[in-house]
Amino acid sequence: MQTITSRDNPNVKRIAKLTKRDQAKKEGLIYLEGTRLCEEALASGQKASEVVVTEERISWAREFTPDIEPLVVSREVFAKISQTVNPQGVAIILNEPKLTADIPSRGDGKDIYVVLENTQDPGNLGTIIRMADAFGLTAVIVSPTTCDPYNDKVIRATMGSVWHIPIVRKTMDECFDFFESSKTDTLAMHLKGTELGAGDLRLPCAYFIGNEGDGLTDATSARCTKLVKIPMKGKAESLNAAVAASVIGYELQKLI
Amino acid sequence: MQTITSRDNPNVKRIAKLTKRDQAKKEGLIYLEGTRLCEEALASGQKASEVVVTEERISWAREFTPDIEPLVVSREVFAKISQTVNPQGVAIILNEPKLTADIPSRGDGKDIYVVLENTQDPGNLGTIIRMADAFGLTAVIVSPTTCDPYNDKVIRATMGSVWHIPIVRKTMDECFDFFESSKTDTLAMHLKGTELGAGDLRLPCAYFIGNEGDGLTDATSARCTKLVKIPMKGKAESLNAAVAASVIGYELQKLI
Repeated sequence: MQTITSRDNPNVKRIAKLTKRDQAKKEGLIYLEGTRLCEEALASGQKASEVVVTEERISWAREFTPDIEPLVVSREVFAKISQTVNPQGVAIILNEPKLTADIPSRGDGKDIYVVLENTQDPGNLGTIIRMADAFGLTAVIVSPTTCDPYNDKVIRATMGSVWHIPIVRKTMDECFDFFESSKTDTLAMHLKGTELGAGDLRLPCAYFIGNEGDGLTDATSARCTKLVKIPMKGKAESLNAAVAASVIGYELQKLI
Repeated sequence: MQTITSRDNPNVKRIAKLTKRDQAKKEGLIYLEGTRLCEEALASGQKASEVVVTEERISWAREFTPDIEPLVVSREVFAKISQTVNPQGVAIILNEPKLTADIPSRGDGKDIYVVLENTQDPGNLGTIIRMADAFGLTAVIVSPTTCDPYNDKVIRATMGSVWHIPIVRKTMDECFDFFESSKTDTLAMHLKGTELGAGDLRLPCAYFIGNEGDGLTDATSARCTKLVKIPMKGKAESLNAAVAASVIGYELQKLI
């Protein structure tokens, strides 16, 4: 293994391109950097197609990606590629998982789905994916306009859950078709909804969370079984989208 | 009102310094920029000590800060001061509120406190302050090592709640002294705790949330009445700190 010391090396140039999410996405790839992110993905069964390490981290590559010949680069070259302030000298390229084609089902009538219509904040999306994995939801469904689940900030915020729970990209129409045919309750989280009471929740259930600033679209709200809001004893009018999604997820999982 | 077009104007230089949070903090001031942030603070009764606007926004200053002579600057100068990508031409300087000296009480035995020991992520702190305001908690208590509540990112995430709910900075010792003398239950959120059951919650209650990576210190956990964790039906081991704080806040407010 020869250590690459030139930024002009064609492999280095190719990897550097893939660190831009737009470019990686176009090629159906994901660039991950740092030991935690890389190890979480590999431990979850994701297969790396390429590995880039500094000389000091060759042993990491041997341990975590034994089947792949790593691209070994100098610290200077790695720092040039790196997207972080303190590069750890470890990066992998993965094939992007397909956003599951069909909405999955547990088959026992206890499905819980969180449906995100146009969520824009990567931290919120990541936090919701993590919550959904923790509470045992069946899937996270994202609208076509919701931010990219394989955005670096989303992946970081999921703490590995992005690899564990099905993430499905569907239009709202496709969602309602599925939920109507599967007799799944549909709850719109809406500031004009009625306060959620004990009797409002039954499984299977899909709950819809809107955009951070604008909430759900009228079209989506109108098609849901019920408009509900979280009871709040204080003064603030609304909650962060990830917090709202989590409170409902928490209440629903009590019914599993 | 003469429009200032030079970056070397002493007033401009002074304001530019205050956009650095460290400097503003040293002087007991807060720099806020953008219509939403400024209007939230002013609507909550905070008094601006200085106002900076571009010529186009003089009417904003007349409406929102009628008692203050605004510093009017050119767009170029404002862009130079600005901390945002798309400057809105509106900024104010506030005196930093004192982090309330004493832990407040409602006086009806229904107090709920969230205590943050070394929370580091500004988004988490802001989201928790917003949640606490929404659910009617009595106060948010932050340890000396928890991040600055008047950090710009925190203020943004609170959506105005930073001006509405008491925020108190106390050591853990000071907290326990107060909670013991006021017979307030103390719950440590801890991955080794017992799963929270219906009988575990009573008011008044203070619940302790630890650092994002390390959780609560052993010393703090040991002094709490009980170690609890949120029941989770899924696979992820833990929740985001703001989500965990919100789920408990939600459950506790049901008892108000």
